[in-house]
Amino acid sequence: SPKSPKQYGNRGMTLEKEIVESNSYYLESGKAVIHKKPTPIQVVQVDYPKRSAAVIKEAYYQRPSTTDFNGVYNGLYIDFEAKETKNKNSLPFSNIHEHQVNHMLQVEQQGGISFFIIRFTSRNETFLLPIRPFIEVWNQQFDGKRKSLSYTFIKESGYLIPFTFQAKVNYIDVIDRVYITGGDHDESK
Amino acid sequence: SPKSPKQYGNRGMTLEKEIVESNSYYLESGKAVIHKKPTPIQVVQVDYPKRSAAVIKEAYYQRPSTTDFNGVYNGLYIDFEAKETKNKNSLPFSNIHEHQVNHMLQVEQQGGISFFIIRFTSRNETFLLPIRPFIEVWNQQFDGKRKSLSYTFIKESGYLIPFTFQAKVNYIDVIDRVYITGGDHDESK
Ligand SMILES: [Mg+2]
Ligand SMILES: [Mg+2]
Repeated sequence: SPKSPKQYGNRGMTLEKEIVESNSYYLESGKAVIHKKPTPIQVVQVDYPKRSAAVIKEAYYQRPSTTDFNGVYNGLYIDFEAKETKNKNSLPFSNIHEHQVNHMLQVEQQGGISFFIIRFTSRNETFLLPIRPFIEVWNQQFDGKRKSLSYTFIKESGYLIPFTFQAKVNYIDVIDRVYITGGDHDESK
Repeated sequence: SPKSPKQYGNRGMTLEKEIVESNSYYLESGKAVIHKKPTPIQVVQVDYPKRSAAVIKEAYYQRPSTTDFNGVYNGLYIDFEAKETKNKNSLPFSNIHEHQVNHMLQVEQQGGISFFIIRFTSRNETFLLPIRPFIEVWNQQFDGKRKSLSYTFIKESGYLIPFTFQAKVNYIDVIDRVYITGGDHDESK
């Protein structure tokens, strides 16, 4: 299991926002092209005033059918979902939708790289958890087992994401170590 | 240059919708995982009525910062923009935004596959045009050359996308031939 140095500098900012910022750094430095997908919205009514932009007057949030982020890094298709929790010791499955899990499995079957980025805000620790170890615990819930990922499991089967000045959630660093160089524990690939 | 059999069955349906349908077929048959990105919308005002869903009361369409579609096929990152025109002999560059072109170049630099799907509705013909031949003509506009892609150029440098019953815009067929097997004309790779 990787060491767990405390991460600094990311208090008061949501995980998603920090990932978006990290992606901007990756993009500007030519390291990776990864974007947040827009939130899907169903538009019901639109006004078209003269000489100005169309105004949406009635619309509803739709449930996303896939994940938060995707893109390309070094020829690899990257696809992930970000989750943060205030719980200290687990991430409940109620935070994760089955259609997202299905999408992530489909991605993996096509040779893409799919994972969760999970932050324990109270610990100020953020992990990359690949779809493989995740899916084993996820499937066990249907046999009556626990309906959450424990902190201990995430720490042992995932990888602590380092904080760096330019990329506050420097997950590409983990991808380099785990998916490209080979990883430091086999069961998490 | 590829032969140009007439394509049938796609009248009265927009290109984008047909691509979405083709993607559904690819997804259900386990062939590829490619989705349309949601249209980005800036939400200004939301009502939260009791016991029912949040209603967006004021919002505006935002300019998309990337392309229409992306995903993974056979380990390859796929990213493309769909354009259709009623013109018979050209696609004006006014239909294409510079930030989209920049995104497509960034994708290519990361080892992804990036292209346009261009339909001439009056001819009922749809082409896949890779970013490489496109960018040459695109760059020439800044030297005072033409500000459009001619039908002839698209036909010679691109690939006619076959219509099939299950995938009306069967662009994966072209990807197989051009990017995987090697293509039938070198300059379009
Ligand atoms: Mg999320
Ligand atoms: Mg388009």
